[in-house]
Amino acid sequence: MGENIGAVARAMSNFGLSELRLAAPRDGWPNPKASEMAAGAEYIIDAAKVYPDFTAATHDIQLAYATTARERDMEKRVVEPAEAMTEIKSQTASGRKVALVFGPERSGLENDEIGWCDTLITIPTAVENRSLNIAQSAVILGYEWLCQQDGDTIARELPEIAPREEWQGLFSQLESYLDAADYFRVAHKKPVMWQNLQNMLLRSGFSSQEVRTFRGMLRALWERRIGGS
Amino acid sequence: MGENIGAVARAMSNFGLSELRLAAPRDGWPNPKASEMAAGAEYIIDAAKVYPDFTAATHDIQLAYATTARERDMEKRVVEPAEAMTEIKSQTASGRKVALVFGPERSGLENDEIGWCDTLITIPTAVENRSLNIAQSAVILGYEWLCQQDGDTIARELPEIAPREEWQGLFSQLESYLDAADYFRVAHKKPVMWQNLQNMLLRSGFSSQEVRTFRGMLRALWERRIGGS
Repeated sequence: MGENIGAVARAMSNFGLSELRLAAPRDGWPNPKASEMAAGAEYIIDAAKVYPDFTAATHDIQLAYATTARERDMEKRVVEPAEAMTEIKSQTASGRKVALVFGPERSGLENDEIGWCDTLITIPTAVENRSLNIAQSAVILGYEWLCQQDGDTIARELPEIAPREEWQGLFSQLESYLDAADYFRVAHKKPVMWQNLQNMLLRSGFSSQEVRTFRGMLRALWERRIGGS
Repeated sequence: MGENIGAVARAMSNFGLSELRLAAPRDGWPNPKASEMAAGAEYIIDAAKVYPDFTAATHDIQLAYATTARERDMEKRVVEPAEAMTEIKSQTASGRKVALVFGPERSGLENDEIGWCDTLITIPTAVENRSLNIAQSAVILGYEWLCQQDGDTIARELPEIAPREEWQGLFSQLESYLDAADYFRVAHKKPVMWQNLQNMLLRSGFSSQEVRTFRGMLRALWERRIGGS
């Protein structure tokens, strides 16, 4: 179906894959439905290569991974997507040509097509519903492919947190207000109450700007009491 | 769109998630298009709960993860799907109620909805095509969720977090005080200022008791203005 071809092309472009091969597409080629579904991946549709059959489509391929839903009664290695993509990344980095093979939506791959592949990829699913369509499968494989490209972890920018002296300023201000408002009431309970309040606020990890914002808010609440009209 | 709701339900059932909540669905509910797309997940569609708005839909939620495509100019933690699901698995194992939040396909989540969430999830994509639709995003998050179920998670004792409806009460109280104190001054600046204040406080992860403590503190600061001697 053109829609499935388009959905696969879209997932390919989302995750950095580009070479699409079609073996005997059912409704001929080009197929406007494929372009409609491609949503930004028209360049993959336009560059797709069409072959008369599966054997021809894989003529120069060195390793083929088939995605299968059904359990197959066949002696083939079976791997999950992450493992498959780790292998494929290493294979392609060594210059090998590797294919990810999808069958038609309804019938899946024929046994002789499966036989032609080296390894089967099964996507884990929940018992409630094991049926994935081709668009879903392509998204997951593409996503795992891209995840494997991140070999190097980039140090992430962590949010800034105000230094303790700025917190100290905030707490002094708040404490003086609360004392003046007789918030703590019973003197011997104050240490625990006040510690809890400080802990609660510290946990928020305010930045310097946020400490100033919070202090401004406290002042607004408070000053109206004194100077309020 | 019903089709998107159905596609999300399908991905949920494929990967072992089941509780679907809808906030003000555009075309009403039930929606036959959702069931058509659900393909084996009709039981999720049938059990979906409908709420009048986003706030109501998250009333009892303790932590919310928003999926966003666009970069947001907002101080929120950002994580990738695998990291998010590791966290959520551990949070839910400890009994916390966690929501995965999706916005409407075209417009995405509103800023105030994003503000209401604790953490943003971004799905890595290739430069060629960064646009993922909701069905694709749901498949990837579901898949990562299921992948995380393989490892053993030891339920840790996590501090309790107040459900969203208690935060709503805190924010209503604070907003009324700040409005009365003319804290925001320039009306058009209020939305951003108020959003930032809410974000700062949400990050603290107050427990129900701490929400009450904080509200008591606000009241103490405020009431003295009115009734103060």
